[in-house]
Amino acid sequence: VAKRLEKFKTTIFTQMSILAVKHGAINLGQGFPNFDGPDFVKEAAIQAIKDGKNQYARAYGIPELNSAIAARFREDTGLVVDPEKEVTVTSGCTEAIAAAMLGLINPGDEVILFAPFYDSYEATLSMAGAKIKGITLRPPDFSIPLEELKAAVTNKTRAILMNTPHNPTGKMFTREELETIASLCIENDVLVFSDEVYDKLAFEMDHISIASLPGMYERTVTMNSLGKTFSLTGWKIGWAIAPPHLTWGVRQAHSYLTFATSTPAQWAAVAALKAPESYFKELKRDYAAKKEILVKGLKEVGFKVFPSSGTYFVTADHTPFGLENDVAFCEYLIKEVGVVAIPTSVFYLNPEEGKNLVRFAFCKDEETLRGAIERMKQKL
Amino acid sequence: VAKRLEKFKTTIFTQMSILAVKHGAINLGQGFPNFDGPDFVKEAAIQAIKDGKNQYARAYGIPELNSAIAARFREDTGLVVDPEKEVTVTSGCTEAIAAAMLGLINPGDEVILFAPFYDSYEATLSMAGAKIKGITLRPPDFSIPLEELKAAVTNKTRAILMNTPHNPTGKMFTREELETIASLCIENDVLVFSDEVYDKLAFEMDHISIASLPGMYERTVTMNSLGKTFSLTGWKIGWAIAPPHLTWGVRQAHSYLTFATSTPAQWAAVAALKAPESYFKELKRDYAAKKEILVKGLKEVGFKVFPSSGTYFVTADHTPFGLENDVAFCEYLIKEVGVVAIPTSVFYLNPEEGKNLVRFAFCKDEETLRGAIERMKQKL
Ligand SMILES: CSCCC(=O)C(=O)O
Ligand SMILES: CSCCC(=O)C(=O)O
Repeated sequence: VAKRLEKFKTTIFTQMSILAVKHGAINLGQGFPNFDGPDFVKEAAIQAIKDGKNQYARAYGIPELNSAIAARFREDTGLVVDPEKEVTVTSGCTEAIAAAMLGLINPGDEVILFAPFYDSYEATLSMAGAKIKGITLRPPDFSIPLEELKAAVTNKTRAILMNTPHNPTGKMFTREELETIASLCIENDVLVFSDEVYDKLAFEMDHISIASLPGMYERTVTMNSLGKTFSLTGWKIGWAIAPPHLTWGVRQAHSYLTFATSTPAQWAAVAALKAPESYFKELKRDYAAKKEILVKGLKEVGFKVFPSSGTYFVTADHTPFGLENDVAFCEYLIKEVGVVAIPTSVFYLNPEEGKNLVRFAFCKDEETLRGAIERMKQKL
Repeated sequence: VAKRLEKFKTTIFTQMSILAVKHGAINLGQGFPNFDGPDFVKEAAIQAIKDGKNQYARAYGIPELNSAIAARFREDTGLVVDPEKEVTVTSGCTEAIAAAMLGLINPGDEVILFAPFYDSYEATLSMAGAKIKGITLRPPDFSIPLEELKAAVTNKTRAILMNTPHNPTGKMFTREELETIASLCIENDVLVFSDEVYDKLAFEMDHISIASLPGMYERTVTMNSLGKTFSLTGWKIGWAIAPPHLTWGVRQAHSYLTFATSTPAQWAAVAALKAPESYFKELKRDYAAKKEILVKGLKEVGFKVFPSSGTYFVTADHTPFGLENDVAFCEYLIKEVGVVAIPTSVFYLNPEEGKNLVRFAFCKDEETLRGAIERMKQKL
C-alpha cells in the first residue's frame, strides 16, 4: 500500500457492518436506513433505465441535474449559482470530498479539521499531502473552542474542512461559530470545504450553509448528496457547489477519479430534488420521532447521552458500563449484547480523546430501535 | 487547481461530446454505444431497485458480485481467485485505475506507460506523484519497441501500466510482447496494472490477460468493467482483481475515494456476468460487422486506416486531407463535415507524435456509421 494510506485501517463502517452480519447483531452502526427510499424516486430511476438513459453522462452531470441542484441550493440558501459552471455531480459526497482535496489542495498546504470527523476526511487530506491541524470540538455540546481556532488560522492556512450537521456528534454549527469561521477565512484568505449531507436532518435549529454568509460563497465548496435526504444511500449521487475557479479544480479531479456518475441515478435525482416541501417536513418529523425513541431508550439503559441537534446519529458516554474504552465497549456490545454502535476514537487525530464516546444511528424503523434498546436493557 | 492537475485540460471526451451536441454532428468520438444494453441486465437493475436493494453496498462489493467477477475471470483466464480477498468493485474502471495508482504508487515511483494512452492514466499517475517513462507504440501496427522497453525497465521501475485491447489504437498485445513484459517484470520485481475493459471485443486474435502468464498473477492488478461488454457505459461498474497484498492498497484508496458503488447496478452486474457464452459471441459478431462498415467507409473516403484488432475504435491517418494536425482536422470535421472524431495527440506525452492520427468509434448503429461516412464522402 502507498505511504499516503499506510496509517489507515479498513474503514470502521466496513468493519462494523461485517461484524453486525457475523454476530446477527442489530446494526445501529453505519448510517444507512433499514427502510427504503420513496417510490417516486425509485420510479424515476426505473423509468430512466427503461428509456435507455444508460450511457455515459456528461462528466460533471446531466444538465437537468445540475439545474435541479442549483434550484434546490437557491431555495435552501438564497444563493443563485450557474448550474453549468458551479455544480459538479459526483459518485456520492465521499467522491466530492476526495475530488475537492485532490483538485484544490497541494502537498504541504495546511488544512484545519474539526475532530471528531468522518474518516474519509483525514484519508483524502493525506492523499492530497495536506498538513492537518486538528481542532477538537468540546463536549458536552461539541462547541468549537473559538480562541483555539483563532490562534490556529494564519495566513499559512489553505482551507478549513467542516461538516454541519456534524457526523458523528449531531452537533450543528451555530451562527456565532459560522461567523467566526467566516471572518477568519476572509481575513486570512482561507477556503472552506463544507460537507452538508445532513442538512435536511436539522431538528433543534435551522441549518445554515456557510456559503450563504457575506463574502463566503466565493471561497466555499459546499458538498451534499442524495443518500441521507432520500434514504437511498446505495445510489451514490453527490455533488459539489462552488464558484467557477474552485469548481474547475473539483471537476478536474472528478474527471480522472470516476469520470462520470450513474446516468439513471442522476435522472432519479432530478425527480428527487423537485420533491415538495412536504416531503422534507415529513422526513424530519419521522426522524425526530426515531431520535426521541433512541435518546430516551439510551438514557433508560444508563448512558449519558450528548445533545444532538441534527444528523441521524447520537453520541453517548459508555463509561457507566465500566469497559476500558470505546473499542472494547463496542466489541462487548456486539458480541454479548447483540447491538452495533460505532466507536468514536477512530474519528480523532488523538484516539484518546474519543475513548469514552460511542455513536448510535437512529435511521432505523421503530421496531429495530426498540429491539436494540431492549437488548441493552437486558444485557448491559 | 492543485499542481498535480495543473497541466491537464478538460478531458477530450467531454470537449468533443459537448461540441457534437452544439454542432449537431454525428458522434464517432467518445466511446459509448448509441444503442441500449440488454434487457436482462436492465431488468435485473429494475428488480433490485424494486426489491429495496438501495442502501450502501459493502465497500469492496456485494458478495454476489465479487463471486460473479471471480467466476468470470476463472472462465476467461483459468485463474482461481478468492472473491473476498482479491476482487474490488469500483465506480467504473476509471475509478479502479485511480484507486490502483493512489493505493499502490508512491511519489517518485517510476511507472512505464505506453503512448498513446487513455488520458486518465497520465492524470492519475500525476495525482500519485509517479515519475512517468513513456514508450511509444510504433505504427502502423502499434507494436511495442521491445528493445526500448528492455532498456527502460530497471530495478528502479515500480510498475507498468498497460491496456489491451488498446484504446485508442485497437492494438492487441501479442503473446510475444506479453511474454517480454512478463519476464522484465519478474526479473526487476515490477508490478503491472492492466486495463482490459475491451477484452470481449477482440476480433483478430484471442485476448490474453497478462495475469495468466506464469509468475504474473501475484504482481498484476487486472481491471475491467461492465460498460463496454454490456453497452451500459453510464452505469459505472468496474472492478480490480489482484492478489491480497495489492488488493489491500486498491481497497484502501477506493474506500476513501467513493466508499462503495451503486447497489442496484451491482445486482444487475451479477446477472450480466452470468450471461451465456452466446451473448459474448453475438456481441463480437455485431461489432465485427460495424467495424467492417466503418473501416471500408473510411478507406473509401480516402483515409489511411491502421489495423485494429480489438476495442470499438479504429485509428486513421488524416493527412491526405491536408489539415495541419489532428486537432485542426477534428475541428474541421465537426464544423464543416458534421462528424466527431477524437484527435489522438492528447494521448501522447509528446503531442507531436499523434498529430497525424484520429480515432473513430464504431459502437454506433449501422445507420449512424453509414451517415457519418456519407457526410465525409461528400464534404472531405
Ligand atoms: C460510508 S459510511 C458514510 C457515512 C455514514 O453513513 C456513517 O457515518 O455511518
Ligand atoms: C470516459 S470516456 C472512456 C473511454 C472511452 O469510452 C473513450 O475512450 O472514448
